[in-house]
Amino acid sequence: MSSVNRRNFLKASGVAILPAFVPAIATASNNRTESPADEPIIKFFYDGEDFTPSMYINELQKINSKENIKRDFYGQGGAVTALEKKFTEITGKEKAIYMPTGTMANQFAIAVLSGNNTKVFVQDESHVYRDEADAAQSVFQKRLMPLAKGKTYFTAADLEKAVDGLKGEEVFSSGIGAVSIENPVRRMNGCMVPLEEIKKISAYCRSKQIKLHLDGARIFMASAWSGVSIKEYASYFDTVYISLYKYLGAAGGAILCGDKTVIDQMPHLIKIHGGNMFGNWTSAAMALHRLEGIETRLKESIKQATTLFDVLNKTKLINISTLDGGTNIYPVEFSKEVDGKKAQELLDKQYKIRIGPPNDKNQTQFTVNETILYRDAAYITDAFKEVMAAAKR
Amino acid sequence: MSSVNRRNFLKASGVAILPAFVPAIATASNNRTESPADEPIIKFFYDGEDFTPSMYINELQKINSKENIKRDFYGQGGAVTALEKKFTEITGKEKAIYMPTGTMANQFAIAVLSGNNTKVFVQDESHVYRDEADAAQSVFQKRLMPLAKGKTYFTAADLEKAVDGLKGEEVFSSGIGAVSIENPVRRMNGCMVPLEEIKKISAYCRSKQIKLHLDGARIFMASAWSGVSIKEYASYFDTVYISLYKYLGAAGGAILCGDKTVIDQMPHLIKIHGGNMFGNWTSAAMALHRLEGIETRLKESIKQATTLFDVLNKTKLINISTLDGGTNIYPVEFSKEVDGKKAQELLDKQYKIRIGPPNDKNQTQFTVNETILYRDAAYITDAFKEVMAAAKR
Amino acid sequence: MSSVNRRNFLKASGVAILPAFVPAIATASNNRTESPADEPIIKFFYDGEDFTPSMYINELQKINSKENIKRDFYGQGGAVTALEKKFTEITGKEKAIYMPTGTMANQFAIAVLSGNNTKVFVQDESHVYRDEADAAQSVFQKRLMPLAKGKTYFTAADLEKAVDGLKGEEVFSSGIGAVSIENPVRRMNGCMVPLEEIKKISAYCRSKQIKLHLDGARIFMASAWSGVSIKEYASYFDTVYISLYKYLGAAGGAILCGDKTVIDQMPHLIKIHGGNMFGNWTSAAMALHRLEGIETRLKESIKQATTLFDVLNKTKLINISTLDGGTNIYPVEFSKEVDGKKAQELLDKQYKIRIGPPNDKNQTQFTVNETILYRDAAYITDAFKEVMAAAKR
Amino acid sequence: MSSVNRRNFLKASGVAILPAFVPAIATASNNRTESPADEPIIKFFYDGEDFTPSMYINELQKINSKENIKRDFYGQGGAVTALEKKFTEITGKEKAIYMPTGTMANQFAIAVLSGNNTKVFVQDESHVYRDEADAAQSVFQKRLMPLAKGKTYFTAADLEKAVDGLKGEEVFSSGIGAVSIENPVRRMNGCMVPLEEIKKISAYCRSKQIKLHLDGARIFMASAWSGVSIKEYASYFDTVYISLYKYLGAAGGAILCGDKTVIDQMPHLIKIHGGNMFGNWTSAAMALHRLEGIETRLKESIKQATTLFDVLNKTKLINISTLDGGTNIYPVEFSKEVDGKKAQELLDKQYKIRIGPPNDKNQTQFTVNETILYRDAAYITDAFKEVMAAAKR
Repeated sequence: MSSVNRRNFLKASGVAILPAFVPAIATASNNRTESPADEPIIKFFYDGEDFTPSMYINELQKINSKENIKRDFYGQGGAVTALEKKFTEITGKEKAIYMPTGTMANQFAIAVLSGNNTKVFVQDESHVYRDEADAAQSVFQKRLMPLAKGKTYFTAADLEKAVDGLKGEEVFSSGIGAVSIENPVRRMNGCMVPLEEIKKISAYCRSKQIKLHLDGARIFMASAWSGVSIKEYASYFDTVYISLYKYLGAAGGAILCGDKTVIDQMPHLIKIHGGNMFGNWTSAAMALHRLEGIETRLKESIKQATTLFDVLNKTKLINISTLDGGTNIYPVEFSKEVDGKKAQELLDKQYKIRIGPPNDKNQTQFTVNETILYRDAAYITDAFKEVMAAAKR
Repeated sequence: MSSVNRRNFLKASGVAILPAFVPAIATASNNRTESPADEPIIKFFYDGEDFTPSMYINELQKINSKENIKRDFYGQGGAVTALEKKFTEITGKEKAIYMPTGTMANQFAIAVLSGNNTKVFVQDESHVYRDEADAAQSVFQKRLMPLAKGKTYFTAADLEKAVDGLKGEEVFSSGIGAVSIENPVRRMNGCMVPLEEIKKISAYCRSKQIKLHLDGARIFMASAWSGVSIKEYASYFDTVYISLYKYLGAAGGAILCGDKTVIDQMPHLIKIHGGNMFGNWTSAAMALHRLEGIETRLKESIKQATTLFDVLNKTKLINISTLDGGTNIYPVEFSKEVDGKKAQELLDKQYKIRIGPPNDKNQTQFTVNETILYRDAAYITDAFKEVMAAAKR
Repeated sequence: MSSVNRRNFLKASGVAILPAFVPAIATASNNRTESPADEPIIKFFYDGEDFTPSMYINELQKINSKENIKRDFYGQGGAVTALEKKFTEITGKEKAIYMPTGTMANQFAIAVLSGNNTKVFVQDESHVYRDEADAAQSVFQKRLMPLAKGKTYFTAADLEKAVDGLKGEEVFSSGIGAVSIENPVRRMNGCMVPLEEIKKISAYCRSKQIKLHLDGARIFMASAWSGVSIKEYASYFDTVYISLYKYLGAAGGAILCGDKTVIDQMPHLIKIHGGNMFGNWTSAAMALHRLEGIETRLKESIKQATTLFDVLNKTKLINISTLDGGTNIYPVEFSKEVDGKKAQELLDKQYKIRIGPPNDKNQTQFTVNETILYRDAAYITDAFKEVMAAAKR
Repeated sequence: MSSVNRRNFLKASGVAILPAFVPAIATASNNRTESPADEPIIKFFYDGEDFTPSMYINELQKINSKENIKRDFYGQGGAVTALEKKFTEITGKEKAIYMPTGTMANQFAIAVLSGNNTKVFVQDESHVYRDEADAAQSVFQKRLMPLAKGKTYFTAADLEKAVDGLKGEEVFSSGIGAVSIENPVRRMNGCMVPLEEIKKISAYCRSKQIKLHLDGARIFMASAWSGVSIKEYASYFDTVYISLYKYLGAAGGAILCGDKTVIDQMPHLIKIHGGNMFGNWTSAAMALHRLEGIETRLKESIKQATTLFDVLNKTKLINISTLDGGTNIYPVEFSKEVDGKKAQELLDKQYKIRIGPPNDKNQTQFTVNETILYRDAAYITDAFKEVMAAAKR
């Protein structure tokens, strides 16, 4: 065992066992949240900490030492059931179920919600439409109807127009089954669908008996940046999928929440599509653990980022801007005086702060996540200031 | 951290760090193989060690401390790729691919091998026929044709008769796609299909251009008990599925091996059915690790069990018999003098040896697995003798 | 030929119009029903008159001359709608719909009745199980569960046992969707399912919320021979399919009857499976026409056959027996004195009476249909007597 | 009526045979083709004669009296086989097969050509995309990729761009199976895809191993108006569907032509989707009959129409224009002086010439078909001139 791992382990498991995050933050001098690695690395990409196997195993070890992790059998019992229960509380839905992937969660939700109807309206830029390898058509016998090409979202008016237009476009109708909304939208730099539009779409769908699914893979991001609770978001939808690995750190997995009558149809679908793994606690226990305090940590991260970006922007050596309706992704441009690439390299080498490499136009983007809390604002500010000074052409 | 876990951890990570199994066996006095738990428990059920989360995490910790586990991304790279490579060596097949479940491996293999043909012959008592929730029909649009009801296997002659009989039974033919053979057969107490019959079936199928799949979930058991190498078994089939959790200890997962043209169709199927998990190294690394030496350990287990059962049978207080064509499951009957239930309880309490509870007829069965190597033969023999003496009515 | 029909015919064909086929009809005063051919041919095979194109066109001409046939457009309106209405009266069901084939009617009924459930119980000897090319599995994603191999029907007790047995046979259940009963059973020489058994099965299914489909392709045969009305048969089932070409003479087509909520799902299914033909009146008008009086004609046919067979059996030169629970198929054996093959040839050549060629054991079977009414009993009796005398060895 | 046809007719109907419909024909010496109705009606809509049941039966009677129609059994033999053979000659393809509907022909062709690949490129305005009730997605598990919204056709460049664009649009590819082209395009007023573009698309598809299907429901129209033979059109495609009822007068039915390996997969698909009707000769015999001379009749119709429209346009009371790339549909506008609606009514009442009712802007369209040959040019010209004069405001 390397010294690195041993230190971590002792910290996690030893005499002064430190429950979760808060005390760790208190004692860990500079850290505002505890880094799972020996030396904290701040990463301005990815939605959350991205564990290496070493970090992951240590984290499981820590979790287990606090309270023995309970295994599941084929997704039933133990950490999986506990996680499902937790998500019913978070979303306010009747029931939740664990699945190995978000593709499965999205597809099953859409398949069950739409029943015998074929048409499902989606955003053109959505994961369901572009990143699920046409599963909807080739396995679930649905026709996805893309709306709002090149945009983050379609409006209730867009949807209504599309629905009404079908009468004129088709002689033989095949029925509208469901509408799926991804929020925030990964392909649109994490931008959000405005709550007001969601409300209108939801009202429209309910008036037409059309079911509504939320691909909320990153709904925690939307919630943190918009201030709208996940429960409120979920209330406008029939089903909600939330990812377990994008910012909750699990090796994989997804949660689907909805009415009991809908969720009760899932175990059979999971089984026949080959998704019913023997043991799922390795992911579920991690997600369950990292759920605790996630909302606070994200709020803190936003605060930290906002302060940091304000200070940095004043230097005029860098310009960090915000996206309209954006979440945790910020466009960044170094001033011409600064060699962005060099700054990036120095940040990593000297301060363990990692950012995406600037392009030819000295532009990159910062993705804010909870690793920003591994150091206090002063550390990060100073780091940036120093490397930008050093990287002046 | 409980003392138990700490001790394990120290053993795994501390001063005398003990790589894998052999040194552990050498130093660990009574143990012939290293137990992943603090105190070794011999279990006469299940096909292999069945890890608790604590044991599992410790085991991962140990593996990682020997050499950093490499992560996969969506099943590509790292421990997953290494595991796939290992299985091409074991089976002699061109290519191998990781999947989350055996149901997925069986179904995809059958679906791809049978192409546009509908009919697939299977054993009536097989997992594919009885334990996959009719996935073949409801998702993969195949018709399973059961043979050999109540028996371990069908013969080549049975198959030929069934194939020829179709001409008379149906006016409109729907094509024969594939034949699937489970070996050994879990529902038949782990009994095996004789190699000679497999050869004949394989020859027949090849002469008729019918593809042949091996559901070898427990093929390591068949191999250990029959002495036929997995490579030889695999050579008679087009595809082979092997489980990663039944005796390899992984939390879940399956491997499918076959020709490149067949296996290359799998990633798309895995994706569209929602089986493409983000991180799979938590299972793959474990299976990869436990593959090392598995064949030797099983051979040793058989030797240990044979010696043990011989000695015990001589006491006349217990009768441990073998099944015709059986693998690791042995029918057991305590003599009338002995209170089997009491013996079972004492074995557990006093010797950490666990057996299934005898029924009203004083009968149970022993499933032999590598936990039998946690103690030497004398320890186990003595334990049985003492408890049977103590449990005399 | 009734005066009505004769007059109609004359009206249709014009004064001078006397195409080759007319004179035969005019002269054949003995006919008890009108033959569509020039010279009436009695056929002891097939369930009804089997029109040649010439006969078919003439028949359409006749029908149209009585009252202009109204065309349908894609199965809507005209003769098709009229036929559907007629079948709701015959079956007592809420709604009826025309389809091109019985396979489509059976499969759609089963698919809709069973919903998301996979398992469908059928007779092993049924058309659905053996003669629909595994459509249930390969298109409609159902698993057919055959019962009563080698028998005409399964009992309610058989069904209950099979349903209850599933709990023990399968770990992951896939749901029981429907039960389908063919009555009478073509592969079992047209034998019937007893009404009492149907009642019990129906009661059982209703108590278990399992839907019940009747493949009544030849239900008119069952009704005529059992004396049970089609309406009563239909009352025990959720859906009923009846063929239009087996004894109603249409070129093709099928009718499916059931509740409005079930039948209303059919047009979409017909469309997407490519069954929505532009014009269907060529079959519908024929079936509609031949429905009139069919029940009377079949009753008369039975009477005629019974008398005839009694008389012939008394000659001891032929033995015509009945099947237990049989409908219009009768086992026949010529006595050894008679050369059956020769008798068959003479019947055809000299009397236009066609029977199936006797086998080596001098056996054949007679299928009774309404062509037996083309001649009076005396004509047929005499014919048989004369040819059997002439065919003595 | 050409002498050939008249002679044929006489031969077929016999000297004295003069059923009700005949006299009209006898007296209408001006007819250039034979009307199936008593009194010839010229119809400037629909692609061909649209038979009433009476006309249809008479036509079958005539056909049968020339040479006995041979029946098919479940689509095999007789008129169906003859028709299939005829279409292999017309298209130059290896094999042809009859199906009940064009939807079935299109869907099966696309399904078989695309194999395991999911994506199929189609025109946005095509029948496959808009008028087959999403059968491609809901039954055949394909994803249709619409191109050229609002246009008659996409170019080879459009297709190439769309194909290449997929790499950037999707992370997980699902494979491109086929391209389907409708020509001419019904939803675009029968306009055609230019031959040069077809050649380019074909060359591109072949270079990329992408299969190409022609929805040639109305390919006879394209051929007549473009002068390109059906055989040449067909040569650029892997499969070709041609309708039997749109201008060939059959009650229903479709023909699919292609390579033997493709067409040989169709009977099984027809069976399992419930399209295997018992008797199909009622449609096949009609189509077979009307195929004879169809190309000549369409050429004559174009000539007749061209002459007629030239003459009429000179009156300045009506303006009949052509569509760019159009086939048999011509935009029509009456001058303001003429009351179009009144002209329409008079044409029908006084001359048995039917046109679509002009709209508020005095516009309608003429669809040219072979009914224009029922009268000579002078009759039609005079009729129009007289009614337009009479309908002046």
